[in-house]
Amino acid sequence: MEIENESRAAQDQPVVDEELVEKVRQKMPDEELLYDLAELFKVFGDSTRIRIIWALFEADMCVCDIANLLNMSQSAISHQLRVLKNSRLVKYKKSGKTVYYSLNDDHIKKIFELGMEHIME
Amino acid sequence: MEIENESRAAQDQPVVDEELVEKVRQKMPDEELLYDLAELFKVFGDSTRIRIIWALFEADMCVCDIANLLNMSQSAISHQLRVLKNSRLVKYKKSGKTVYYSLNDDHIKKIFELGMEHIME
Repeated sequence: MEIENESRAAQDQPVVDEELVEKVRQKMPDEELLYDLAELFKVFGDSTRIRIIWALFEADMCVCDIANLLNMSQSAISHQLRVLKNSRLVKYKKSGKTVYYSLNDDHIKKIFELGMEHIME
Repeated sequence: MEIENESRAAQDQPVVDEELVEKVRQKMPDEELLYDLAELFKVFGDSTRIRIIWALFEADMCVCDIANLLNMSQSAISHQLRVLKNSRLVKYKKSGKTVYYSLNDDHIKKIFELGMEHIME
């Protein structure tokens, strides 16, 4: 119902530059891709997950060392690692009885560095 | 109370590699910076804001053209533009009676492109 109202309101909007709107519309990526992009940034939008990722920039680590570093419980860290794994941001490998987590992707560090540049400007 | 429990739990955690944890601890940025970084990504973690930003990659636009493009009400778009402005992601200039919004920052496009690379991998 709310969506219908939004939609009706939009069609009532006067367009200032119809040609421009059409040109931009052609260039917009698929709705679904932009939704997935928002979901990825939602995963980054949590300071515990940010701290876990930052720690993994420095070294591969096991859950209990991450828990110790961040002064949090292992279960809290495990929960966030699951979220990160579901978004393909971290991967793990076993070494004896210990599971080591590492970053899955070179993009993440660059994204974080650019984010840092923005907030420090 | 919950925080106390978390903290107590963490101090009980066995550390596998104490030297490594110490080394990583030294390299972690300030807590406050990492918090601000999470807040920045929270702003990106909304598909309407993502679509507004993507539109502004293509052209500076006024509220009513953005509203028409995204098929949303002007008030919904204005609200999200305020959020983006508070995070210094968009700026605006007046031209006659019309206010045009543009991106404030070259980092944003690069961050989005890297995010797209991650989700399309």
